[in-house]
Amino acid sequence: MRAARERQSRLTKPAGSLGRLEELSIRIAGMTGKLDPPLDDAVVFTLAADHGVADEGVSAYPADVTAQMVANFLRGGAAINVLARAAGARVVVADLGVKSDLAAAEGLVSRKIRRGTANITRGPAMSLDEARAAIEAGRALVREHRPDIAITGDMGIGNTTASAAIVCALTGLDPDAVVGRGTGVDDSGLERKRHAVRDALRVNASAIAIGPAETLAAVGGLEIAGLVGVILESARSRKPVIIDGFISGAAALVASRMALGATDFMIASHRSHELGHGAVLEQLGLKPLLDLDLRLGEGTGGALALSIVRASMRLLNEMATFEDAGVSGPAP
Amino acid sequence: MRAARERQSRLTKPAGSLGRLEELSIRIAGMTGKLDPPLDDAVVFTLAADHGVADEGVSAYPADVTAQMVANFLRGGAAINVLARAAGARVVVADLGVKSDLAAAEGLVSRKIRRGTANITRGPAMSLDEARAAIEAGRALVREHRPDIAITGDMGIGNTTASAAIVCALTGLDPDAVVGRGTGVDDSGLERKRHAVRDALRVNASAIAIGPAETLAAVGGLEIAGLVGVILESARSRKPVIIDGFISGAAALVASRMALGATDFMIASHRSHELGHGAVLEQLGLKPLLDLDLRLGEGTGGALALSIVRASMRLLNEMATFEDAGVSGPAP
Repeated sequence: MRAARERQSRLTKPAGSLGRLEELSIRIAGMTGKLDPPLDDAVVFTLAADHGVADEGVSAYPADVTAQMVANFLRGGAAINVLARAAGARVVVADLGVKSDLAAAEGLVSRKIRRGTANITRGPAMSLDEARAAIEAGRALVREHRPDIAITGDMGIGNTTASAAIVCALTGLDPDAVVGRGTGVDDSGLERKRHAVRDALRVNASAIAIGPAETLAAVGGLEIAGLVGVILESARSRKPVIIDGFISGAAALVASRMALGATDFMIASHRSHELGHGAVLEQLGLKPLLDLDLRLGEGTGGALALSIVRASMRLLNEMATFEDAGVSGPAP
Repeated sequence: MRAARERQSRLTKPAGSLGRLEELSIRIAGMTGKLDPPLDDAVVFTLAADHGVADEGVSAYPADVTAQMVANFLRGGAAINVLARAAGARVVVADLGVKSDLAAAEGLVSRKIRRGTANITRGPAMSLDEARAAIEAGRALVREHRPDIAITGDMGIGNTTASAAIVCALTGLDPDAVVGRGTGVDDSGLERKRHAVRDALRVNASAIAIGPAETLAAVGGLEIAGLVGVILESARSRKPVIIDGFISGAAALVASRMALGATDFMIASHRSHELGHGAVLEQLGLKPLLDLDLRLGEGTGGALALSIVRASMRLLNEMATFEDAGVSGPAP
């Protein structure tokens, strides 16, 4: 970080004039221990799973959409496919816990831990062992694909409700300040979501009191647990991981509580339109790069931020210095 | 725009979940009259000129830096070169009025109208004919290069002072609310800049009262006038033009006053760190895509926004529809 900061000061631009791009390049140098780390191979880990809490009418879409969207990912027709192609990133689509059987298809990574979670308003989403298995599945994906930079992504009807429950459980915030409209529920749907989160927090209070892994198992989701693994393994291998929106943010919050220092490897891609996302970013101490009212998930905000992340490192490495370019520094 | 809006509603994502990217794609469809306009050939017009007001000690850098940075652009070592390479854009470097003779060099477009402007604290920056010639030079660059999408860029020691004077003159805002630190002047430099702008507004009051072209000639700059031409010609040819930061914003403000409807073709790339830029964006009625504390100019914010602009159109055109992908819509 010191070497990157020193180099930034010698590049042909007024000191600090590249603003947050300078900070970002210094952070990435710190994460990787390199001034010019490879960032070519970027992988979006789009993890899918279903949520028992969808039975509570918390989504504008039927639960079948999770599996239908996985098929859309595999055919390359979803937003994340388009944005990953545009940015030059691979998309790894993994089934961590979709309710239905998915037909084997090229590109589908099957890591189904169970067929969706249980309804968190009635009891725990999954057992602690299942949560640990999902985390390990996420870690294994990173070890297998070894990307230069990872991007988190999610698909799961009902997962803004599970994420809101995680965020409330780990921060103590009131559901009214965290629960948002997700895919676009109306006022009565929003009321049902708030109720569901309150019920989930009450029913699972004793597990939540124990710690972050227990909270994840009690009120989380299988794709969220997988993303915790993606984040933890990226941090362990000293590689940057771009965090997408609200669901990824909930996973990042769990990861930050499980491993001190994991946040050092996180890059917040964007500020989601979802109500509770600002609180998540504040808790993580991360400033997002983009603020475009996105609320889609899949890794879309992360893929969109990738070009900015890469640009920050190219500036650090490819710009001429004042000395090399024969440009005068500030007047004395 | 209607066709783009209708198509957005059928793509496999919750309605509105791509936020500002949806708006942007609808605007670009409106600008070009096409759902899938070509955006491959992007050109950053980085126009350079010197400013007589630099004699007032309004910049942290000596005036020689304008010419030195032009040489840096031509060697590919400046921030704009790096970001344009990263984004897949060409950089056209044109001398609209650098004070010194620039050695002929490959890639340098010589359109020198005069050797820098006169000191605006003592009288007009240039004649109205010179301002018109600089505007026409900018228009001609666009006609010659015919980009699918243009990006505005600038280089000129002293040009945040001239831009602040333009903004104050056209909006009636007080210099205290507009004049910023530019390349990074200290408190006394900032005080000198505010004084210089007040003097320029008073000395040139009668020209300012006439209209935007007269204001540009009285307190503007040659590269700023060239950018007015780039913007007007882009709008005339129904092509989008990405507006960089504060200096480009001042040019955009002049263009918007000269041609009603020119703002329809403008895309605001970023919110600059420079004090008065927020007011410029508000006057233009444009919301910037990025907010990264940049304050470098050259077209850097514009080049950085290009990938987001292109991504918005790829999403519109490459995403599957609910029908095609067999994905269920919202539950009734």
